[in-house]
Amino acid sequence: MMRALSMRLYHMGLDAHVAGDMSCPPVGKGDLLVVSAGPGAFSTVMGLIGVARGAGARVACVTAVPDGAAAHAAHHVLVIPAQTMANDQGGAVSVLPMGSLFEGAQYLTFELLILALRDHLGVAPDAMRARHTNLE
Amino acid sequence: MMRALSMRLYHMGLDAHVAGDMSCPPVGKGDLLVVSAGPGAFSTVMGLIGVARGAGARVACVTAVPDGAAAHAAHHVLVIPAQTMANDQGGAVSVLPMGSLFEGAQYLTFELLILALRDHLGVAPDAMRARHTNLE
Amino acid sequence: MMRALSMRLYHMGLDAHVAGDMSCPPVGKGDLLVVSAGPGAFSTVMGLIGVARGAGARVACVTAVPDGAAAHAAHHVLVIPAQTMANDQGGAVSVLPMGSLFEGAQYLTFELLILALRDHLGVAPDAMRARHTNLE
Amino acid sequence: MMRALSMRLYHMGLDAHVAGDMSCPPVGKGDLLVVSAGPGAFSTVMGLIGVARGAGARVACVTAVPDGAAAHAAHHVLVIPAQTMANDQGGAVSVLPMGSLFEGAQYLTFELLILALRDHLGVAPDAMRARHTNLE
Repeated sequence: MMRALSMRLYHMGLDAHVAGDMSCPPVGKGDLLVVSAGPGAFSTVMGLIGVARGAGARVACVTAVPDGAAAHAAHHVLVIPAQTMANDQGGAVSVLPMGSLFEGAQYLTFELLILALRDHLGVAPDAMRARHTNLE
Repeated sequence: MMRALSMRLYHMGLDAHVAGDMSCPPVGKGDLLVVSAGPGAFSTVMGLIGVARGAGARVACVTAVPDGAAAHAAHHVLVIPAQTMANDQGGAVSVLPMGSLFEGAQYLTFELLILALRDHLGVAPDAMRARHTNLE
Repeated sequence: MMRALSMRLYHMGLDAHVAGDMSCPPVGKGDLLVVSAGPGAFSTVMGLIGVARGAGARVACVTAVPDGAAAHAAHHVLVIPAQTMANDQGGAVSVLPMGSLFEGAQYLTFELLILALRDHLGVAPDAMRARHTNLE
Repeated sequence: MMRALSMRLYHMGLDAHVAGDMSCPPVGKGDLLVVSAGPGAFSTVMGLIGVARGAGARVACVTAVPDGAAAHAAHHVLVIPAQTMANDQGGAVSVLPMGSLFEGAQYLTFELLILALRDHLGVAPDAMRARHTNLE
């Protein structure tokens, strides 16, 4: 879901990149690292947050666990209170397995975020469309 | 969405792989190549379908365009009649940009598919969970 | 090796992207698609070449088989006459398995290409270094 | 280079996976996590080492910096004393930029490792070849 979000941010003309992609620049002052850590924390995410903070960047975290380690280490937290692998066992659980509910809730949240951001930035749908790659 | 589907198939104990991953075996007789081609066809997808058919594998295609090239080349077609980049311009279009509606519809479809397949195969939720990687 | 080459091109300040990365723009007039097809052709590479040519881009192909399908479809061909999976069986073969020799020869060729290009463009080593990501 | 190594290990019939690939299982007792940290450490690598150790797996580290954090946290260390981004500035540096020398040295080292392992395991070249994917 983070990859899809990043693609839409790029479609809107923003300087957005995914960690691990070949043309990803270094993160620093004035940048925002956006991480997803549904169940509270992942080891690699915590590592990247540390790098970003050390370089003077700000960090936004999407999570279902607002008191988790990733949220604590972030400057901005977006809480999506949906089931993740942190609470998918026991009694009253979703019919969907593991963290599927959180993934679906992220899909909806990011689509709404993109619509709001597109309006805020005044990006025309055709301009987004024109940035979509044909190498697929 | 195809990557997420593949992960869940793996979680269920199936021999599922993503093209491009390092331990992806060759496809051949008795295998099923599952492709997604919302707007009808992609050049790389058509290439992979050709390889799979030539090697004796069967092909299943998820698409919004049942008379597209990918669907025609596939043995099995799952039609999700949602907006893609093949019909996102003009009058009565979704509020969501480009192919977002198809992506969301794929999410829902694959989750239902996984629930049905899990019941059909008799896979216990804990067995799926135990196969989830901790390297994240 | 293509991913490493792309990263170095990006390090030199060029507008370089890898197909499949999230911020990859569409290819068109004035662009160069660089593909590697050691043994002559791959189905996905042939698909991408078709898209690039149709969009008015030029295509450069790195291969060991100058009369292969990818080389024929490209505007520019760089031949590296090293063993690939097209000729790794039979009598006088490399001690290295499959296409390993071609991979190593690509490594050397691309490093020399990068040094020549860095001089040609007048890019300072520190400028390249400053573009390397810290998100790793 | 780690991805290429992993593919060859898979070609030899070993249960090898890359972190981030969709069918990557959890790591635990009896498993070996192999990481590369040329300049001594990366934040994500340190995170994964912590997970692997916590789960009872053993860790092997390939590095140019034997007293770096990754090497210290690993059970086995393979030192390749080639230039990385930890020592690519100042006087007597390689003509190759940044960590290119380490990458090339890793290529050679891994090829020799694969040849030795292939002999040790008694894997026939044709058996390796037959496992190579055609989905490319």
